[in-house]
Amino acid sequence: MDIKNNRTSENTMEAACKVTDDICLPDSKFPRVVIIGGGFAGLALVEKLKHKELQVVLFDKNNFHQFQPLFYQVATSALEPDSIVFPFRKQISGYKNVAFRLVEVEEIQPSLNTLITSKGKVHYDYLVLATGTTTNFFGMDSVEENSLGMKDIRDSLNIRHMMLQNLEQAAITCDDDERDALTNFVIVGGGPAGVEMAGALAEFCKYILPKDYPEYPSSIMKIYLIEAIDELLSTMSDKASSKTLKYLKDLNVKVLFNESVSDYDGSQVTTKSGKTILAKNLIWTAGVKGQFPKGIDEKHVVKGNRLKTDSNLKVEGHENIFAIGDIAAIITEQTPKGHPQVAQTAIQQGKYLGSSLLKIMEGEAVKPFEYKDKGSLATVGKRKAVADLGKFKFAGYFAWLLWSIVHLLSISGFRNRLMVGFNWAVSYFSYEKSNRVIIRNFKPKSVIHTKK
Amino acid sequence: MDIKNNRTSENTMEAACKVTDDICLPDSKFPRVVIIGGGFAGLALVEKLKHKELQVVLFDKNNFHQFQPLFYQVATSALEPDSIVFPFRKQISGYKNVAFRLVEVEEIQPSLNTLITSKGKVHYDYLVLATGTTTNFFGMDSVEENSLGMKDIRDSLNIRHMMLQNLEQAAITCDDDERDALTNFVIVGGGPAGVEMAGALAEFCKYILPKDYPEYPSSIMKIYLIEAIDELLSTMSDKASSKTLKYLKDLNVKVLFNESVSDYDGSQVTTKSGKTILAKNLIWTAGVKGQFPKGIDEKHVVKGNRLKTDSNLKVEGHENIFAIGDIAAIITEQTPKGHPQVAQTAIQQGKYLGSSLLKIMEGEAVKPFEYKDKGSLATVGKRKAVADLGKFKFAGYFAWLLWSIVHLLSISGFRNRLMVGFNWAVSYFSYEKSNRVIIRNFKPKSVIHTKK
Repeated sequence: MDIKNNRTSENTMEAACKVTDDICLPDSKFPRVVIIGGGFAGLALVEKLKHKELQVVLFDKNNFHQFQPLFYQVATSALEPDSIVFPFRKQISGYKNVAFRLVEVEEIQPSLNTLITSKGKVHYDYLVLATGTTTNFFGMDSVEENSLGMKDIRDSLNIRHMMLQNLEQAAITCDDDERDALTNFVIVGGGPAGVEMAGALAEFCKYILPKDYPEYPSSIMKIYLIEAIDELLSTMSDKASSKTLKYLKDLNVKVLFNESVSDYDGSQVTTKSGKTILAKNLIWTAGVKGQFPKGIDEKHVVKGNRLKTDSNLKVEGHENIFAIGDIAAIITEQTPKGHPQVAQTAIQQGKYLGSSLLKIMEGEAVKPFEYKDKGSLATVGKRKAVADLGKFKFAGYFAWLLWSIVHLLSISGFRNRLMVGFNWAVSYFSYEKSNRVIIRNFKPKSVIHTKK
Repeated sequence: MDIKNNRTSENTMEAACKVTDDICLPDSKFPRVVIIGGGFAGLALVEKLKHKELQVVLFDKNNFHQFQPLFYQVATSALEPDSIVFPFRKQISGYKNVAFRLVEVEEIQPSLNTLITSKGKVHYDYLVLATGTTTNFFGMDSVEENSLGMKDIRDSLNIRHMMLQNLEQAAITCDDDERDALTNFVIVGGGPAGVEMAGALAEFCKYILPKDYPEYPSSIMKIYLIEAIDELLSTMSDKASSKTLKYLKDLNVKVLFNESVSDYDGSQVTTKSGKTILAKNLIWTAGVKGQFPKGIDEKHVVKGNRLKTDSNLKVEGHENIFAIGDIAAIITEQTPKGHPQVAQTAIQQGKYLGSSLLKIMEGEAVKPFEYKDKGSLATVGKRKAVADLGKFKFAGYFAWLLWSIVHLLSISGFRNRLMVGFNWAVSYFSYEKSNRVIIRNFKPKSVIHTKK
């Protein structure tokens, strides 16, 4: 006897599958816009295109949007991952013209208007690339194999697990050198991600370590921040840079300027000038590069692996392919390097394309994309942040409060805001953080490769 | 130039390492009790031995205690894992005679009073095995390779990820048979774990599926519960069994009695009587077996891979080795199969040994362990639970409320209780659950093995 579902017309969906598509998608009489990537840019675009006369298909290799600005808090056990990621299916619930599919896109075939994905071929009428960036190790294999970037929620969890495993191993070992290496942290890159990570680690060292590891004094954990030029947060004001440096020094972070990493074997960092630092924890925030499926002619790719677009974000050489967010580069006299690769740009480009796409499709003229700099914020620790808001440049408690409010309001989903707000409130009064548990053992890539 | 930590006597711990130990442990003039495993039994014992004239060393392969009774809620995205696991270091904070080390114990050498661990050798004066049980697939390799047990927080996360991945794939495929297999769930074992899992999945299907997957009707997801004998919750009262069956039927769970699984290829379940069910989701709760390091003579091992102990929980044939919790079997006329393998037994045995250990060490007589049955509770869904409390046997809203309160109060840590309480409250009023995100892709063991 076979127990099978009784199929009625109600639960047979085969009819809905387009013959040319390998992926099941609803029938639609409207043109299909495929968006690859649901980051800040992709999601802002989806929000603008909902309920419009278009079939919107969102592809992402994850089933959730990630709130990158708080990755460092997940890495240092201040927040749980589920508080800063948000399922696409919750986001698009009720948007009848929007479909999400968990699919990795491998190749674009522009001449056929077709995508080759991990699950087969799919047709598009219009394609929007919102695939963002990944960590750039600038070809240094030894660093890539032994360190961790911070461009994905899994990176954050890997950093957390690496850190907790190493602190546990430090309690086990009887070897002083090994214990030093296990408890030393090197962060490369003095941009917002590096500065925020260094500050959070320093606070962990000051408030959590003595409670969790009475075995050793908190002085055992050393934090180094390596920056290639002579200032931190170089895109912000001088005031912000110098104040940030002071905050970090107050927290005992050792900042090394005009220095960069030349080699890393997993235990010892070697710098360009020949310094060596014993450290089994290396966090790399020193660069990013664009990532997108193959199929776009190399001549349209500019520095940082970004796609050159016109002022309407249409990729050069294509009539129906657009790029938004970190991978889009509108190169003009005013923006010779393209716009800054930050959340604000991504959101503004997603909204802009959402408003102009229908017109662009009709061949109508639309105004070029204009970036509005809303200012910059960065935080080093509790009550310590810097802010550049146009003419107003300030630092300290108020900047920190502003940082907290802006980030809290930017997180997707009411429940997530509540969870983050709750954790921050507990942490504000107690310095206590969420549970420091190692759920998945972390192994550096080099170890995994050796085991093969 | 070398940047190294300056070593002062303050942060040199080598002196604290015992010469005979490979693992760094504090010096102590008191006898050393090593406890392997920080489950309900191990942790209850630690609590009793804190601040006593003993050196207590807790070894566990995880850095956290797990609250097993709520694993099924993590599997169905009702709770996040960090709400039901609790770091040992938080638990033992301030217990000066207790040390935790993240170590896997591989072998016991009773004649040398030595343990061989993943990090080297360690001496013990007294050893307590509290290593619990693992899933028993009864030698059915095809089932073990393709299904998931639920005896570890990672199992719960794997079930969650398997389920969400399969539901996403069901939205992609154009093949009706494949879609059926992806959306069908088979749970094997009609004990509390199986019943609670079936109920939670049925509620997911009823309340979450239509919101998240408007692509298909909720009737597409079928849930089968397979039980080897002719009743559910066989250790509870007849009233509890029949009421549970009614609850599950109301939730459209298909219960198959007097039936068991004979084969599973990852897509099709074959039962002993020859039935076949298309299902890519198989959850196995049908059996457990004791797990402990090698080194104990086989003649002291009884059915279910448990260790035969005397009435003081001392392992047969050993003077300084004890067993508590699921792996301990006190075989008497009153308990021919040992005590039930439940949290209550484990906690009572941990407490008992904690109170009697010092006396036992001195060779003084102590009363034998006596189990007090505090009753049983099981829940099927919101407002649906059954309770057997001595003469009082009841079901429904009040049983469910009692179940909720008992479990909430049993969870370690104030923060965890708050998180679970918050999530349950939100869920009570809205049926909404926590974020359904796939953070680590799940691959069945068979797939991983093939890839090697």
